Amino acid sequence: MISRESISKDAPITISDFGEFGLISAIRAVLPPDPAGVIGIGDDGAVLPAPDGRVVASTDLLIEGRHFRPDWSAATDIGVKAAAQNLADIAAMGAVPTALLFGLAIPGTLTAAWVLDVTKGMVAECQRAGAFIAGGDVTSSDQIMLAITALGDLQRRDPVIRSGARPGDVIAISGPVGRSAAGLAVLQASGLQTSGVADPNWTAELRAMVAAHRSPQPDYPAGPAAATAGATAMIDISDGLVADLGHIATASGVRLDVGAGLLPGTDPLMTVAARLGSDWREWALGGGEDHALAATFPDASKVPDGWTVIGRVDRGTGVLVDSRQWRGSPGWDHFARPHS
Amino acid sequence: MISRESISKDAPITISDFGEFGLISAIRAVLPPDPAGVIGIGDDGAVLPAPDGRVVASTDLLIEGRHFRPDWSAATDIGVKAAAQNLADIAAMGAVPTALLFGLAIPGTLTAAWVLDVTKGMVAECQRAGAFIAGGDVTSSDQIMLAITALGDLQRRDPVIRSGARPGDVIAISGPVGRSAAGLAVLQASGLQTSGVADPNWTAELRAMVAAHRSPQPDYPAGPAAATAGATAMIDISDGLVADLGHIATASGVRLDVGAGLLPGTDPLMTVAARLGSDWREWALGGGEDHALAATFPDASKVPDGWTVIGRVDRGTGVLVDSRQWRGSPGWDHFARPHS
Repeated sequence: MISRESISKDAPITISDFGEFGLISAIRAVLPPDPAGVIGIGDDGAVLPAPDGRVVASTDLLIEGRHFRPDWSAATDIGVKAAAQNLADIAAMGAVPTALLFGLAIPGTLTAAWVLDVTKGMVAECQRAGAFIAGGDVTSSDQIMLAITALGDLQRRDPVIRSGARPGDVIAISGPVGRSAAGLAVLQASGLQTSGVADPNWTAELRAMVAAHRSPQPDYPAGPAAATAGATAMIDISDGLVADLGHIATASGVRLDVGAGLLPGTDPLMTVAARLGSDWREWALGGGEDHALAATFPDASKVPDGWTVIGRVDRGTGVLVDSRQWRGSPGWDHFARPHS
Repeated sequence: MISRESISKDAPITISDFGEFGLISAIRAVLPPDPAGVIGIGDDGAVLPAPDGRVVASTDLLIEGRHFRPDWSAATDIGVKAAAQNLADIAAMGAVPTALLFGLAIPGTLTAAWVLDVTKGMVAECQRAGAFIAGGDVTSSDQIMLAITALGDLQRRDPVIRSGARPGDVIAISGPVGRSAAGLAVLQASGLQTSGVADPNWTAELRAMVAAHRSPQPDYPAGPAAATAGATAMIDISDGLVADLGHIATASGVRLDVGAGLLPGTDPLMTVAARLGSDWREWALGGGEDHALAATFPDASKVPDGWTVIGRVDRGTGVLVDSRQWRGSPGWDHFARPHS
């Protein structure tokens, strides 16, 4: 154990200074108290309510250099993003997020402040979603890795899976898409990838795109609302709208036809694209990580408030944009390598 | 996509050859079918039964070079070990393991066969525990990392946590300890760390120690049995008996006194230690990863079949061995570094 006095400003406290159990104590100190009736961090396992008699579970990994860069994103934003992408998966099943478990693999040379800020970001996003942090594990590694598992409750509703879309259904989304991709493009064009930095000349629109990239804010209640409204299929848009609708098309054995002009909130995308000489459709149709939800409904009258109809389900296969094949980027393959 | 014909024996199929979605398909092909009434891998989240109305959840990370070495352990053994250490955490709460979610972060240059063998190991251990694989995520990384989350059902029992031990209770364990540490010592002494290798001169005892190290086989039903029998506190022995009993002592505000001579199954440890010039107590009291369970019970008559009484709970703090301070290795700190 090192004393506080021995630490100068030039030598911030690292994970190795804390040790494993010291770090766990410090992490627990930034977590809110467990809700009544649950056992959270500190035992072999957490015990959580699952009042529905079923539990929804989803797991995701985030790897330094691939899913985030500590020099581009503030630690709290990384925490928000890690939590948001998993909690959005729960909402996309039509469930209410209840709990999050996280594993942190980190080099011992990392500052304790960085780890605690990641934790605070996760806590903030969990609180926004109505979930709590129920468990975790920390260990050392060469590369930073976050492993997140989110749990949720269906509240007696049927889960909304990918395979239920039928010809004649309408397609709708719960919020704008492409803003995260546009925000990344803004950062790259500005040479301002460094964490937290903003260009004073940025308009409110540019700032909004960058914020969407740095810390997405999914509309979690939109998932249960769609389930209650009778959604036939639903998915979280993480890899890109066309790519993720493609999963519904494949699972349901249908064709999805999206009208690019029907997409909500594209005005700022167009403004920013004009400024950067880019195509806004690439961002809206191919950009991932906004974590809006896409769903199909039996007819337009069933689509709940806050959702926007963007197309229709037909017989056939695959995804069309304005009734034509989409030639842009279809989304991400995490193991893709250049063609030889 | 590469053709099968283009692959020579010298160039095994790698993850990059498969691509992300090809790899997911290949992994799904080695998984048994989902049990009736559940939604497993393939949607945004899994939907699992939680008939008790509560769910037990535990998460763990395993990092290449720290928790396993691909050149020392066969891939199936790594899968068994990863699953076992999480499923044992569920049993240590008094719950029955129901499901496992796994994240795999792997370099694209790794062979697909390695990943599928890890998966097969996890499947085998899940089947032994009565759980199924409900979800996962794969992504690329420089260092191999496995992130496992296990879920379980309490079947209407109260969870057995660490804080319930009381002076006058007896301490018991569900199986032998120290075999994994002894097995590692055997491998190191033989210079035979390489995966799957065995020395033809090894006795059955040496072979059993090595097997315990390579793929621990926790006694999962011992956890629910202890809960039913009225265990007051319980823990999975993962860091070492003294270290893990220390967690019960701290959480319960009691002193635990273990009799080294009461530990079950120590004869082969003594034989092997004599051969290697080692101290068997170091393995039994400080060695981790056997994943036996330790619990406290109100009195010896309550201890269920298969469990062995190894000591008693007193007023005070900490853990004693034969009523004296234990001077050996207390267990693991994953961020420990040499004292300066």
